[in-house]
Amino acid sequence: MNFQIPKYKQPNFEQEPFLSAPDVQIVEVKIDGVAPEHYHGLSIYPEYFKISGEWILASESRMDGVPVLGSDGNIHVVEFRNLKIGDKVIVGRTEDGREGIFVYAKGFSSNDTDSELFAFRSGRSRETAYSKDYNELYELLNYEKDNGYIVWVLGPAVVFDFDSRQALSSLISNGFAHAILAGNAMATHDLEAALFGTALGQNTYDQQSPPNAHYHHLDLINKARRAGSIKALMEKEGIKDGVVYSAITNNVPLVLAGSIRDDGPLPPVIADVYQAQDEMRKHTRKATTLICLATQLHTIAAGNMTPAYTQRNGEIRPVFIYCIDIAEFAVNKLRDRGSLEVTTLVTNVQDFVVHVKNNLIKIGVGS
Amino acid sequence: MNFQIPKYKQPNFEQEPFLSAPDVQIVEVKIDGVAPEHYHGLSIYPEYFKISGEWILASESRMDGVPVLGSDGNIHVVEFRNLKIGDKVIVGRTEDGREGIFVYAKGFSSNDTDSELFAFRSGRSRETAYSKDYNELYELLNYEKDNGYIVWVLGPAVVFDFDSRQALSSLISNGFAHAILAGNAMATHDLEAALFGTALGQNTYDQQSPPNAHYHHLDLINKARRAGSIKALMEKEGIKDGVVYSAITNNVPLVLAGSIRDDGPLPPVIADVYQAQDEMRKHTRKATTLICLATQLHTIAAGNMTPAYTQRNGEIRPVFIYCIDIAEFAVNKLRDRGSLEVTTLVTNVQDFVVHVKNNLIKIGVGS
Amino acid sequence: MNFQIPKYKQPNFEQEPFLSAPDVQIVEVKIDGVAPEHYHGLSIYPEYFKISGEWILASESRMDGVPVLGSDGNIHVVEFRNLKIGDKVIVGRTEDGREGIFVYAKGFSSNDTDSELFAFRSGRSRETAYSKDYNELYELLNYEKDNGYIVWVLGPAVVFDFDSRQALSSLISNGFAHAILAGNAMATHDLEAALFGTALGQNTYDQQSPPNAHYHHLDLINKARRAGSIKALMEKEGIKDGVVYSAITNNVPLVLAGSIRDDGPLPPVIADVYQAQDEMRKHTRKATTLICLATQLHTIAAGNMTPAYTQRNGEIRPVFIYCIDIAEFAVNKLRDRGSLEVTTLVTNVQDFVVHVKNNLIKIGVGS
Amino acid sequence: MNFQIPKYKQPNFEQEPFLSAPDVQIVEVKIDGVAPEHYHGLSIYPEYFKISGEWILASESRMDGVPVLGSDGNIHVVEFRNLKIGDKVIVGRTEDGREGIFVYAKGFSSNDTDSELFAFRSGRSRETAYSKDYNELYELLNYEKDNGYIVWVLGPAVVFDFDSRQALSSLISNGFAHAILAGNAMATHDLEAALFGTALGQNTYDQQSPPNAHYHHLDLINKARRAGSIKALMEKEGIKDGVVYSAITNNVPLVLAGSIRDDGPLPPVIADVYQAQDEMRKHTRKATTLICLATQLHTIAAGNMTPAYTQRNGEIRPVFIYCIDIAEFAVNKLRDRGSLEVTTLVTNVQDFVVHVKNNLIKIGVGS
Repeated sequence: MNFQIPKYKQPNFEQEPFLSAPDVQIVEVKIDGVAPEHYHGLSIYPEYFKISGEWILASESRMDGVPVLGSDGNIHVVEFRNLKIGDKVIVGRTEDGREGIFVYAKGFSSNDTDSELFAFRSGRSRETAYSKDYNELYELLNYEKDNGYIVWVLGPAVVFDFDSRQALSSLISNGFAHAILAGNAMATHDLEAALFGTALGQNTYDQQSPPNAHYHHLDLINKARRAGSIKALMEKEGIKDGVVYSAITNNVPLVLAGSIRDDGPLPPVIADVYQAQDEMRKHTRKATTLICLATQLHTIAAGNMTPAYTQRNGEIRPVFIYCIDIAEFAVNKLRDRGSLEVTTLVTNVQDFVVHVKNNLIKIGVGS
Repeated sequence: MNFQIPKYKQPNFEQEPFLSAPDVQIVEVKIDGVAPEHYHGLSIYPEYFKISGEWILASESRMDGVPVLGSDGNIHVVEFRNLKIGDKVIVGRTEDGREGIFVYAKGFSSNDTDSELFAFRSGRSRETAYSKDYNELYELLNYEKDNGYIVWVLGPAVVFDFDSRQALSSLISNGFAHAILAGNAMATHDLEAALFGTALGQNTYDQQSPPNAHYHHLDLINKARRAGSIKALMEKEGIKDGVVYSAITNNVPLVLAGSIRDDGPLPPVIADVYQAQDEMRKHTRKATTLICLATQLHTIAAGNMTPAYTQRNGEIRPVFIYCIDIAEFAVNKLRDRGSLEVTTLVTNVQDFVVHVKNNLIKIGVGS
Repeated sequence: MNFQIPKYKQPNFEQEPFLSAPDVQIVEVKIDGVAPEHYHGLSIYPEYFKISGEWILASESRMDGVPVLGSDGNIHVVEFRNLKIGDKVIVGRTEDGREGIFVYAKGFSSNDTDSELFAFRSGRSRETAYSKDYNELYELLNYEKDNGYIVWVLGPAVVFDFDSRQALSSLISNGFAHAILAGNAMATHDLEAALFGTALGQNTYDQQSPPNAHYHHLDLINKARRAGSIKALMEKEGIKDGVVYSAITNNVPLVLAGSIRDDGPLPPVIADVYQAQDEMRKHTRKATTLICLATQLHTIAAGNMTPAYTQRNGEIRPVFIYCIDIAEFAVNKLRDRGSLEVTTLVTNVQDFVVHVKNNLIKIGVGS
Repeated sequence: MNFQIPKYKQPNFEQEPFLSAPDVQIVEVKIDGVAPEHYHGLSIYPEYFKISGEWILASESRMDGVPVLGSDGNIHVVEFRNLKIGDKVIVGRTEDGREGIFVYAKGFSSNDTDSELFAFRSGRSRETAYSKDYNELYELLNYEKDNGYIVWVLGPAVVFDFDSRQALSSLISNGFAHAILAGNAMATHDLEAALFGTALGQNTYDQQSPPNAHYHHLDLINKARRAGSIKALMEKEGIKDGVVYSAITNNVPLVLAGSIRDDGPLPPVIADVYQAQDEMRKHTRKATTLICLATQLHTIAAGNMTPAYTQRNGEIRPVFIYCIDIAEFAVNKLRDRGSLEVTTLVTNVQDFVVHVKNNLIKIGVGS
């Protein structure tokens, strides 16, 4: 394997304007859930704050969070709604160090491998050449399997098709997923496929719609609610395949966030969306690679809370974010919402997942 | 005005198979939130159930609900999660009357105006001729203004543009909206436009991005959270225009449903998505016309809970559903999810809203 | 191999209304290039015409052609512009046999394999399950390689990517293409990739744009024009790979039709579009399978001239038409233009071609 | 009217590197239709060439043309295929003046109005705010009507709808079009609408498909071929409305370029695409504003041959290019092909044209 994690180049604070920069300004929260005026908002990049003359890295970031100086001397990242009276919020909206705030966008870019990887981000479309992106992704995933934390963000379409559902299940069973973020629909239709062979009433292989198959997903949800949990449902109904099955049997955490579009919902779906954000964030803060498939809602939600870097074994390393969708608009939207360091592939996620599986898992072993 | 509401043609139950059909079968709920096996699932169409020899119309419908016979002899529509032990659920999955269940899809179709209105639903695309659809919508809205209940379902894009934000505000102020269903983003960016002139940091008129404008929507949310309510925010900041302002000052209910994509959120956003569904349903059950603009999430959510008919002043009449989106896939998806009686227009919602406003409101009066 | 060509079921003309139907009416052409009033227009389906009491099959069809009775007693299909004074055009616009004209849309549908193949045509989108379509296509192409005539219709995007350009070249070299229909751009960028490694100035593998690479396609065309032919260019420049190279070295005919969008053009591009149609039709009339990749212009052109059936070794058999494009609108458009019997796949053609190659060609043999 | 044409700022050649730059190198053509090695390729921007110590502006440009020094001392722009033996082609691929070649991209940008107009070009999508673009376009067209040369490039969709076909006709009749570039389909379906009320068989107002309406466009073409010309057809059939009628009766030149997708074709359609390019170019070289509606083929063709500047009454002024399409991919493609100075609007062209007409033509006057 020739994959190399890009090295992080520490900023040199032994020069101006860093040396003569003041400490950051701090203002305490006066009302729960409300930041002080001029609060600093975080980006996806590593950010340093001068505290008592030292430049401290916020060990995490997320885009709708503010930096709070903890009593431990660390910088914590707190969402607006979670701010408490007395929290010491860093204020200031410059980014170049002058006010004690330094946003460091180029920590990985001097590395050659990395600069190639990130070189061509603009204007990607259905006509972009993706061969190299695929090859790099294969190498990356082989590395991350044992050395990283791969988070999949799934829309339902990936389980609508026989081959792609099987391919994704196989990737999970073979260690290429450390957490899965999705919604009620993905889990429902995956389990529907396991029990009835259909997704939203249509057979995942032959596209037939058996009589009354439009009841299948509702029946599945009702059975799950009767069983009380997905695990109990799987045992009761003898479910032995699919994305949910592979996740649960391989102890891959599965966060299912609720939406107003849900039928049911399935038992473990989280009804409160902000609680769901908190559960999702438990995994995005560990993520080293994030792969988002055909869901604007979950992709932008996860993208907003995933920084461009993470600390792993004491090292700062990049987080690789992939967004795969058939619409240019959808993949561009993630970038327009601030997730600048994303690799986008414009294609059908079915084909994408099957390609990835075929290249990562040798026949006879993984499937 | 020559607009005529299509007349509902009562089914003739004085013939077979209705006369000799049995009463519906009823099974009681044993576990809260779980339907009995073979529960009947409702469609968007009027459904009749034979109870004690009488064919009773379920006065409402929604797609993920089941029919429950109430102690008042009426058929109630209850979502799975709201079922209680002892609820009398109607079971059976035929639709032609043989089991005491009759789904009546053609109640309005003998009416000539209506049959033309609904004639060409298949294969609508960017190349479909929409002139007549526009003209019919203008007539419909003029009628519904005083005689119906118009529910708008809004994605954020409609407030991103100066003219369309103003046009929609004007429609609301002039009585063409009776309820608005949206999310945190629509309200946030509308108020951001009122306070800063930008939406997601870009000026809604000249497309300029002022320095630090990417803070605007977060600042707006933070100010609203400090004020404690949108109304308090508007007073404090002197906000006098926009969709939210027009809704609140004209007492048009505004339901804001939360999603995992939210920043903030704004004070009145409902965090629990199933509670949000309940709030939305309070309006969809009254709706006579539903207009969905550029939001897959809210459109499918609202579409799922809106039947093709409603009762108004003791009369059964059709509910007109419009879905406007720039992507064929998005408008088709609503139909694929069972909302068959929808009129779709494939265009940019900015242009759509401005057209509607220009045709409904005479210059000098409404704008 | 278990692939079976659907059997054609001859219509039974020994029954009414066929027995008592009159012979077709025939009117002679009075002006070159102009059909008589009420000329019959052909469809993509087999059509029979009663001539001297016999029902004669038009051995070919194309959508903008009219049936002409030849002196040999056969029915010829002639485009409007090719009609000559004195041509005996069949007139009449009924299709059920009453006027001696019978359009036979169900010749293959009693066959079970076929009915499954054609069962689910409506509403295909990015979310349709394509696993079975892929598997059937693999079987079909393995059969057609030796027993059919596979025509590829190519937009330029398929040669923009390293892997897909190589995969398609490999399919051609391994016998899976009997003719290729394309335009100036596909050939230009394929040869540009062979000579410079770029397509439209961007490297097909690493997406880099070398200095002055925007000259590459113009330089390529200029070199080809200097060489006088593509073949001479390939020899002179030592070109040894790609779609054009594979086609020419394997004697696969390559029809390049001109368009107003062309630079250059390359030497063999046909400037007159109607002459180009004639050259294309030489292959579509032999086609047993047509595969169209990411080009609206060439796809609709080829689709218009390809019937749903062909005669091969004295047998009538279906023509299988596939259209692959990333936009639902594009694949639906072919159907809207009358090519009803098309299998559409909504995906990136890069992924499609690589999948097909991986499944048809064993590693080490074909690539 | 407050519209002001941006002033062109002449480059200052009285400074380095211009003063000490050599004259351009010139190489004569040796083979008809083939440029010498290292020919200079033109961009859409004004380009100056040092000839005998003087910096001469090429009075026109087009992207697939090369600069040829004429015996009159002027720089002519010649397509590859039109090069003749002995033509003096300028060679060299630098753009900064060092080799006597200067590409001047900023001639209009110091003007404030202009810089605002061109400020936000990147990332335009369905969610971009278009209010100001519309307003500027209205002012521009009012100016250009009498002081410019407005060229419309039309796909067929704009005549598929009753209102938009009428709006465009009205714009033409009121002087807002000086030339129209389109294909066989636009003209055919526009005349079909005039004669039968349908476009491709569907009524342009009520979307009904009358019996055998799929013959209408073929019948229209056949009638036109019989009449011998569109003008004769219009007289014979009493056609009095539509885009083609308005163009012909107002002496607006209409160039119809052939494509392999054509039925028929109509009499004046140009079969040879390179001859069609020459005819199109007669108008693009005069164009001061180019408006392209829903056609990739004609838009990119016209875009390739339209420079960012033109000379009018001895003044150099910008050419304004607009591209309106419902797909981000389509409008971005024009930019990706080098037409950088284009204003794109992502919407349905029906709505666009009706908006433009409503704003430019007072009710009762133009329609």
